[in-house]
Amino acid sequence: MNIPSVFWIVPFASVCALIMAFYFYKSMMREDEGTERMREVAGYVRTGAMAYLRQQYKVVIIIFVVISLIFAFMSYVLHVQNPWVPFAFITGGLFSGLCGFFGMKTATYASARTANAARHSLNKGLKIAFRSGAVMGLVVVGLGLMDIALWFVILNAFYDGEANALVTITTTMLTFGMGASTQALFARVGGGVYTKAADVGADLVGKVEENIPEDDPRNPATIADNVGDNVGDVAGMGADLYESYCGSILSAAALGAMAFGVNYEMQLKAVIAPMLIAGVGIFLSLIGIFVVKTKDNATMKDLLHSLNLGTNVSAVLIAVASFLILYLLKVENWIGLSFSVISGLLAGVIIGAATEFYTSQSYGPTKDVAKSSETGSATVIIKGISTGMISTMIPVITISVAVMLSYLCANGFDMSMNSESISKGLYGIGVAAVGMLSTLGITLATDAYGPIADNAGGNAEMCGLGEDVRKRTDSLDALGNTTAATGKGFAIGSAALTALALLASYIEEIKINMVRAANEGVVFIDNLGNVFEPKNAQLLDMISFFQVNLMNPKVLIGIFIGAMSAFIFSGITMGAVGRAAGSMVEEVRRQFREIKGILEGIATPDYGRCIQISTKSALREMILPSLLAIAIPVLVGIVLGVSGVLGLLIGGMSTGFTLAIFMSNAGGAWDNAKKMIEEGNFGGKGSSCHKAAVVGDTVGDPFKDTSGPSLNILIKLMSMVSIVMAGLTVALI
Amino acid sequence: MNIPSVFWIVPFASVCALIMAFYFYKSMMREDEGTERMREVAGYVRTGAMAYLRQQYKVVIIIFVVISLIFAFMSYVLHVQNPWVPFAFITGGLFSGLCGFFGMKTATYASARTANAARHSLNKGLKIAFRSGAVMGLVVVGLGLMDIALWFVILNAFYDGEANALVTITTTMLTFGMGASTQALFARVGGGVYTKAADVGADLVGKVEENIPEDDPRNPATIADNVGDNVGDVAGMGADLYESYCGSILSAAALGAMAFGVNYEMQLKAVIAPMLIAGVGIFLSLIGIFVVKTKDNATMKDLLHSLNLGTNVSAVLIAVASFLILYLLKVENWIGLSFSVISGLLAGVIIGAATEFYTSQSYGPTKDVAKSSETGSATVIIKGISTGMISTMIPVITISVAVMLSYLCANGFDMSMNSESISKGLYGIGVAAVGMLSTLGITLATDAYGPIADNAGGNAEMCGLGEDVRKRTDSLDALGNTTAATGKGFAIGSAALTALALLASYIEEIKINMVRAANEGVVFIDNLGNVFEPKNAQLLDMISFFQVNLMNPKVLIGIFIGAMSAFIFSGITMGAVGRAAGSMVEEVRRQFREIKGILEGIATPDYGRCIQISTKSALREMILPSLLAIAIPVLVGIVLGVSGVLGLLIGGMSTGFTLAIFMSNAGGAWDNAKKMIEEGNFGGKGSSCHKAAVVGDTVGDPFKDTSGPSLNILIKLMSMVSIVMAGLTVALI
Repeated sequence: MNIPSVFWIVPFASVCALIMAFYFYKSMMREDEGTERMREVAGYVRTGAMAYLRQQYKVVIIIFVVISLIFAFMSYVLHVQNPWVPFAFITGGLFSGLCGFFGMKTATYASARTANAARHSLNKGLKIAFRSGAVMGLVVVGLGLMDIALWFVILNAFYDGEANALVTITTTMLTFGMGASTQALFARVGGGVYTKAADVGADLVGKVEENIPEDDPRNPATIADNVGDNVGDVAGMGADLYESYCGSILSAAALGAMAFGVNYEMQLKAVIAPMLIAGVGIFLSLIGIFVVKTKDNATMKDLLHSLNLGTNVSAVLIAVASFLILYLLKVENWIGLSFSVISGLLAGVIIGAATEFYTSQSYGPTKDVAKSSETGSATVIIKGISTGMISTMIPVITISVAVMLSYLCANGFDMSMNSESISKGLYGIGVAAVGMLSTLGITLATDAYGPIADNAGGNAEMCGLGEDVRKRTDSLDALGNTTAATGKGFAIGSAALTALALLASYIEEIKINMVRAANEGVVFIDNLGNVFEPKNAQLLDMISFFQVNLMNPKVLIGIFIGAMSAFIFSGITMGAVGRAAGSMVEEVRRQFREIKGILEGIATPDYGRCIQISTKSALREMILPSLLAIAIPVLVGIVLGVSGVLGLLIGGMSTGFTLAIFMSNAGGAWDNAKKMIEEGNFGGKGSSCHKAAVVGDTVGDPFKDTSGPSLNILIKLMSMVSIVMAGLTVALI
Repeated sequence: MNIPSVFWIVPFASVCALIMAFYFYKSMMREDEGTERMREVAGYVRTGAMAYLRQQYKVVIIIFVVISLIFAFMSYVLHVQNPWVPFAFITGGLFSGLCGFFGMKTATYASARTANAARHSLNKGLKIAFRSGAVMGLVVVGLGLMDIALWFVILNAFYDGEANALVTITTTMLTFGMGASTQALFARVGGGVYTKAADVGADLVGKVEENIPEDDPRNPATIADNVGDNVGDVAGMGADLYESYCGSILSAAALGAMAFGVNYEMQLKAVIAPMLIAGVGIFLSLIGIFVVKTKDNATMKDLLHSLNLGTNVSAVLIAVASFLILYLLKVENWIGLSFSVISGLLAGVIIGAATEFYTSQSYGPTKDVAKSSETGSATVIIKGISTGMISTMIPVITISVAVMLSYLCANGFDMSMNSESISKGLYGIGVAAVGMLSTLGITLATDAYGPIADNAGGNAEMCGLGEDVRKRTDSLDALGNTTAATGKGFAIGSAALTALALLASYIEEIKINMVRAANEGVVFIDNLGNVFEPKNAQLLDMISFFQVNLMNPKVLIGIFIGAMSAFIFSGITMGAVGRAAGSMVEEVRRQFREIKGILEGIATPDYGRCIQISTKSALREMILPSLLAIAIPVLVGIVLGVSGVLGLLIGGMSTGFTLAIFMSNAGGAWDNAKKMIEEGNFGGKGSSCHKAAVVGDTVGDPFKDTSGPSLNILIKLMSMVSIVMAGLTVALI
């Protein structure tokens, strides 16, 4: 098979991304890390973060080895699985792990440098923090696209000349996502538990009981808290979006191969198009990254404006570029498909804006949460939960409209719902997901910027830098809170769209496995007693063979179990944070009690013990929910078959998506309501309103930083596991 | 058509239920209401409750008139709706309203009498409270079954001799549920907001700020709080279960008519069987009610045992009776169907037990919530939310297994999934719902007992009765908390099963409307361009005509919007309680500030103002969520058609069910964790742990008494609205 020369833009783009990431890293490293004390504090955080990451990877490696062996057994002994899966699983996990490692390494080197730069000017601080965040963004898209390009070339060579090779290749590549998903789940859950155990523990004793400010060096959990920002928000977020990025491109490619199955040339174009859009997106992200700068007396609004300018420039450019790419490729219905891309892009923007509306103190909802503190912490909690629940409306409707539009644009507004029109429509949904994630290079940069600025603020506070410097780092930090909130909305939205694309691909994966089984002599009988021929089966034949309709009790039960899975998973991760925070509170109280002179600033607290507690808790607590996420789809597949799995996936996705938005936005609103009070509203710091708001913020911590974001991965991982297990499910039919 | 003579058991049973309800009411009224002060306090509560109910009914009547006019327009001008709907809508609402009225009237007369009886002996107190609760239970089943029997006879006479009359009759009767649903939603939401505004307001100022005990007459919101128990827990719960009861019987009948469409005699039996089971259930409930008694030095365990004995006796008897009824009726596959009934019954028992496990202070989960108060209110909230989320597992799995078992038992373990086997299986699910609700007479009695005992305790506290009397009323109250929690679990479980049965009936309602339209000359074209003949269409033909499969984006979007609806609805009702409680807090603070001498017990607080605030808030806040619940399925039907509506219903049901369990159980666990601390654990009353637990309890109030239970009705009402609107949906195809 001749890979068209235009394809080579994809690996080229990925290499460029990595080179630019290295360049940004190097220029950051050339900056001065500040005073002796600043280096020391940054060193503590860096050492803690790296030590945790090493331990997390050790645990993850063991789990990866076990799962790979199971996959190898299934592939080579039972022959119920694609032979590439064990390798693909490992590369996916490895690349995802590398993203976390590079991103976090950069972030932990950047924080003190950002604080130091802020001693000179706001613009310099912003630039260092943002470009260090861009390292993460570029590493993710670079490694992701490289992995995809590499395997595409290898598999093309391997399956060259086989019938319908592109379907085989793309469905094989789809299984690569599972390694990335699994690694991402451990990173999100482990990182989430780590960071929130430290944060909640530090706040409960430090702020509430002892009345000392945040990031105060007298608080024994302070370093652990700063380490947590890195392992949770940087490494966890990176692994999450690495997975969405690869998942969306791979599922769009698989859906493209399916939709144009009768025409090889068109099929190839449909497979390559999403990769090309992503590749071009890298260059456009780079342009956006260079656009971001600010002046020194910049207000919060200016700062936000400069970041938004960067992302908007990239978004507009990619919209234009999509038209060009699809036109030049001469993809069938290129205008419609371009609108599919744009509907995904726009959905990302709208969800981000809605998140900002519900969680920023500039708007009504968060102001109301702050006001509810006047009648105590209970009403703060009630109001925050209410706000979070109501905030699910815009994102769900946005995703629904985007799904409908991208579906209809891609199949020429064909509502006849025959197999062909559905297949083309589903490809549109896949392409929309790629559109949303095409500028990930810069959107992830704004995201990773948040914890870097936060740590810079922490560093400035702990090292007692001057008032004006802290004012600058505070501005940078406040900006980071906003970008972190919108980034969370974006991560959830892209996870939902990616998961939907994966859901659509699942049925194709089942078909491929049935064809293989049929070639080996297995005979499938439908419910009327006729022999079912998977090879010639269209999408709707598959649907009807498996009775994937809403009157099938297996589908109904699957949907219920999916909804339940999202709740159980969140319940377990919330509980994990509660337990870990409890140990942390006891340790911090013990240190204040037993180590005399901490509060007077004479004695140094034992930071290491707190880091140890967070580490241990995270490693212990990440196992159960992660294994559950893998086990549930396998069990449902064994007991309820294909129709049950499809029910499970859509049930888990719809409930998980809504629950994730609820939790993230409620958490964000509580956080900023507290900040609003700390800025002097409703009595300011130390007032009874402030105490009530701190309770809200503390509850919101695991909402927005542990359970909420982990749900993104749950919904993707459940789809991925089902896709990888398709062979086993078929063997049990 | 000859209605078989055995049918007359049904109206006879309903009359017996009403006579016994009247008898229990009269014998309660003969009891002494106690001292002058006790009568006075009970009078306040009674007047407040009745005044609220009158005002609520006034608002509801206006809404009913408007909706009836719309229905009349649709029936007689547009001809897109069954001509019986406007009348049926009104009778459903009227009967449901009557249940609330009678139940609440009895409850408000019974509280002081229970307190007075407790001055003599525990057994006497239990008997009065429980039998007054039984009035509610019997009125609900009596009126429900009477409504059904009446319309069955009328419609039989009307459609006598028509082809497939039973399908027409049962699908027409199904639309009656909408009146009951609508009335129930207003009762649940209005009552829920009323009671929790008062409760939260009373607690936040009384307990937290002024440190006075619960039900203290010095607290201006005390009377409103006691009124709230009646309007929320008695009238609201009654309307909720009236709706489930009628809905389950009617949908089982409709599914029966569908499943045996080829054999008129069998069809008639299948239609009558659920009514008979419910009718016989009334007699068996009465037996159970007479079994409940206790000795005077009874422990909490003894009390619980005596109530459980009553419900268990009824449950075992109905299991045996189901075999007999189905055997004597000679229904096809009577053994299998009996097991379907039993699987529903058992599911109810298991969900009740799971609810008790997660919310009772005798078990680990609630103990852990209490323990988490040691690290402050934030960890109490985190732990409670985690516990509530994890507690969704057993109920969801139980309902899933019950659905599968009842489906398979009813169709002879036929997994071939052809139209016939599915129809028969769905009838099994309908029958399982009837099984779960067949002993409602007694289960609702144990439920309504709760608020009566609660009010009796309040009366005893406010009238300063002796220590030993209050100890007795406290025992009765504690028992009531347990039965209220299990009752909530039961209400949710039955709502889910009923909603599933309604979902299955929806497609039949669509078919009936299509047949009518086809008779009037409308031609339906399927996606292959062929003419679709609804008259001869089987279930699977309908499914395939409307493309109700999980690759249809309309279905997918419907599921997402369904999940969102449950969250939005809860968010709005939570917000309503937050707002109403805020006004109440301000009023109570104002009275303490402005009316001198309240706290010293010299001046009387202005109870009336607080009642007014609760009333106004409830009436204002119940409108939006209720209209939303009606509007969403109508809009989805118009925009996305049949497949979108089915997606919406199953999405709303799965998420709503899980969310409702989460909210109810989290609320229950917080409530009992607080009680556990008040009994002297973790520092007891007034300790910092207690303060933290009170925050949990206050947050839990709207969780368990407003938003959670309202979700039951949301999921049923959305199905009902869709069923009633089926004609409009078909007209728009």
